Parts: sequence; structure tokens; C-alpha cells
Amino acid sequence: MLREDERLDYLLAEDMKIIQSPSVFAFSLDAVLLANFVYVPIQKGNLVDLCTGNGVIPLLLSKRTKGKIVGVEIQEKIYDMAKRSVQYNELEKQIEIIHGDIKHMPAYLGHSKFDVVTCNPPYFPTPNEEEINKNEHFAIARHEIYCTLEDVIRVSSQLLKQGGKAAFVHRPERLLDIVTLMRQYRLEPKRLRFVYPKEGKEANTILIEGMKDGNKGLKILPPLFVYEQNGEYTGELKHILYGE
Amino acid sequence: MLREDERLDYLLAEDMKIIQSPSVFAFSLDAVLLANFVYVPIQKGNLVDLCTGNGVIPLLLSKRTKGKIVGVEIQEKIYDMAKRSVQYNELEKQIEIIHGDIKHMPAYLGHSKFDVVTCNPPYFPTPNEEEINKNEHFAIARHEIYCTLEDVIRVSSQLLKQGGKAAFVHRPERLLDIVTLMRQYRLEPKRLRFVYPKEGKEANTILIEGMKDGNKGLKILPPLFVYEQNGEYTGELKHILYGE
Repeated sequence: MLREDERLDYLLAEDMKIIQSPSVFAFSLDAVLLANFVYVPIQKGNLVDLCTGNGVIPLLLSKRTKGKIVGVEIQEKIYDMAKRSVQYNELEKQIEIIHGDIKHMPAYLGHSKFDVVTCNPPYFPTPNEEEINKNEHFAIARHEIYCTLEDVIRVSSQLLKQGGKAAFVHRPERLLDIVTLMRQYRLEPKRLRFVYPKEGKEANTILIEGMKDGNKGLKILPPLFVYEQNGEYTGELKHILYGE
Repeated sequence: MLREDERLDYLLAEDMKIIQSPSVFAFSLDAVLLANFVYVPIQKGNLVDLCTGNGVIPLLLSKRTKGKIVGVEIQEKIYDMAKRSVQYNELEKQIEIIHGDIKHMPAYLGHSKFDVVTCNPPYFPTPNEEEINKNEHFAIARHEIYCTLEDVIRVSSQLLKQGGKAAFVHRPERLLDIVTLMRQYRLEPKRLRFVYPKEGKEANTILIEGMKDGNKGLKILPPLFVYEQNGEYTGELKHILYGE
């Protein structure tokens, strides 16, 4: 089942495993934080994860909801990893992985059909030739080559029902662009949480959730610290990662 | 020197006193946090505090800079308190208190003359008749009766030189309006700090600083907690308040 250079890793505290590859794709802490942060309906509903990579967010969300989850990945090699991880965990009935471009998803999946959209998008602007040549897979996952932030937010809004939730993880430098684009595409920001590497440091990650056609009223959630001063994970991080 | 219902309070750790009145105006923690948060040039420069109330921010800033500080207050009774506090502390050479409407200040003080603008503006929309009748002084200080958030931000931008800094304190619910208006009036948000009443609670105050015609690039500073779980001020708050 594993291809060259792949390995089967434990997915945190969950009773699941996930296929990763050091040279192609491995999930990040950011994806785990987003899967933990987002609102989910417990008993039913339709969820979609854009730029799903090796499917870590759909896999983690499957522990929080009985709803149907779709993951969309544009890179065939990584899509294939996600699909096999879903099979390995026997979650084919709940999770569907689609190989495709997120920009085609409103036409393919339908407008206003989803209760929840998540996305851990590429964070950085388009790289130069050299960077793309060095590792195309990483370049596509990290840089806005196939989809920009605006694509992500526009598509999320198109996929969501009225009142549906969109949750994103990104870098603080882009906060103002994100909230501006969210309002432009009718996703009113409702919950915002900042992730700090440790006490006394600037935030290096943001988690934000908006509601389609929601009323104004943004809450700033308590800060999330990743590490204690001694370099260990904080209690909250251990809880998120290992369920401790 | 004190009028009916006024008292002379110590201004925190500073070797200063300030005139307050329980029925007219007393400064808030928010003003103290803003005076501590804002960038100031140390040796010289021109600073202006809009909606200055009893002048708490100019008084506190005088300990951080040798620059000239102007405070603007629209309510005559409160302006008069601020003016007498400046006299009491013998700071007339450094601090000038103006009785006037902030909207007239660019014409009165000149465009693009200031290095720093601060403002702890009214937080709430226009109140009803009853609220205004109950206590007009409080109503004006707390509600957008004489100046809206947009007035504050537009006037701040007009007063600032290119590269000058504007710092505001406000409620998190208005964060998106503030950043949108700041960008609209060429004040690029550069530093943002959230104030949390204690660990595990949502933020109830924001401190934000922008630079006129600054480049994009927002930093999210470490969170500021006001109280420990036991209800005492945190170490950082004690330091801000009492210099401990």
C-alpha cells in the first residue's frame, strides 16, 4: 500500500494512521490546529476541506462529526496519498477525496451546499523558477501557484450555505487581507484566535472563522501558546495533539 | 483650585497628580494602556491626543518624551479639568490643552504636522435621549455623539506627517471597522495588541498602531493579561500602573 519514500504515521492521539512522505507532503501543526478550531455540526452536515494535502483535516474532523466530509487536492500524487489514508482507516463512507482544482468545485459540487469549509492554504506569494524546480510539490503546497487567498475565500463562500462556517489558518501578516476579502465575499468574521509560539513572543499563526451572511460581531478568543518557556508543549497543545 | 465634586488623585506611579470627578470624568485603564502602548519619539517631536478627557494621556506621555504634546477636548468642563491638571503639574511648557472639536483640528493645528496621534475615542453608537439626559458628560465621552470612529481616523491621518504613528484603543467588536477605516485613510496597521481580562477569557480591548503611508506588515504583539486568576493585577499590569 505504501509507495516509495512514503511512511505510515500515527495521527496524533486519534486511533488512525496517515500516509506521509518527507519529499512530497507531511502535515503541519497548523492543519491540526485548524481541525481543532473549526465549528462542526456533530450529528450530520456537509463539510469540505480545500487544499487538503494528505487529508489530515478530513481525517481529524471525522472524529468530531458524523457528517460527510469532502477533501479537494490538486496534486495527483498527494491526492493519492490522501485517498489511500482514507481507505486504510476504512473511512470511505464518510470521507471522499477529490482530485481537482478548488476553483472548479462550486461547479462540480454545487453552490450553497456545504455547512462548513476549511482550508489551510498556501501561505506565500508565487516563488521563483528555482524554488519550483527544487521541489514542485512543496512549492505548490506553500506558494500561491494554483490558488490565491482570494480564490480560497471566493470558492469557500460559493460552496457555503447561508449561515455556514468557513475556517482558515494563515499568517498574521495576511490578517488584514483575509478579513477584507472575507467581508468582500460575504463571510463575516466571527471568531479569531492568535497562536503564539510562547509567552512574550509575537503571534505567528491566526485561526479565523466566518459565517456566510452572518451579522457583525467578532470575538477574539483566548491566545493559544504552543510551547512553555522550557520548550515543552503547553497543556493545551498536548490536549489538542495527544488528548492528554 | 479644585471645583465642586472634583478630587486630586495620584497618577499611578508617576510623580504627578490629576483632577478627576466621579460625576463628570475619571480616566480609565484603557487610556493608561494606550499611553503605554504607543510609539513615542524620546527627544523631540509633536504629539496630539484627541478626545483627551482630563488629560491623562498627555500627562503620562510627558514622562516618555520631551516632545510637545497637545490634548483636544470638546467638553468645556472636562477641558478645564485637564488644563488645571497640567498647571498643577507645572507642565504648561510641554502640554497644551485645547478646547475644541477634533474635526476642526486639521484646519486649526495644520495638516501633516504631527509625529504621533493618540485617541481613546467614544466606544459606543449614539445613545437614546434618556441616556444623554441622565449624564451628558458620560454620554459624550462614551458614545459617538460628537465624533465617530471615522472622524477620529480621518482627522488623525490629516494631522500626521508621512511616516507618523496613530495609536488607538477600542473594543474588539470594532476591530474590522477600525482596520478598514485605517487603510481607507492611509494609516497602515503595523502593531496590534489584544488585552484579555485574564487567561482563558476573550479579549475585551484592542490596542492598534498604524503608520501614515506605511508599508503592509502587521505584527500581533504578545497578549496582555490584566488580572491573575486570583483577581490580582498581573506582573505586567503592575509594571504599567505602578512601575513595579
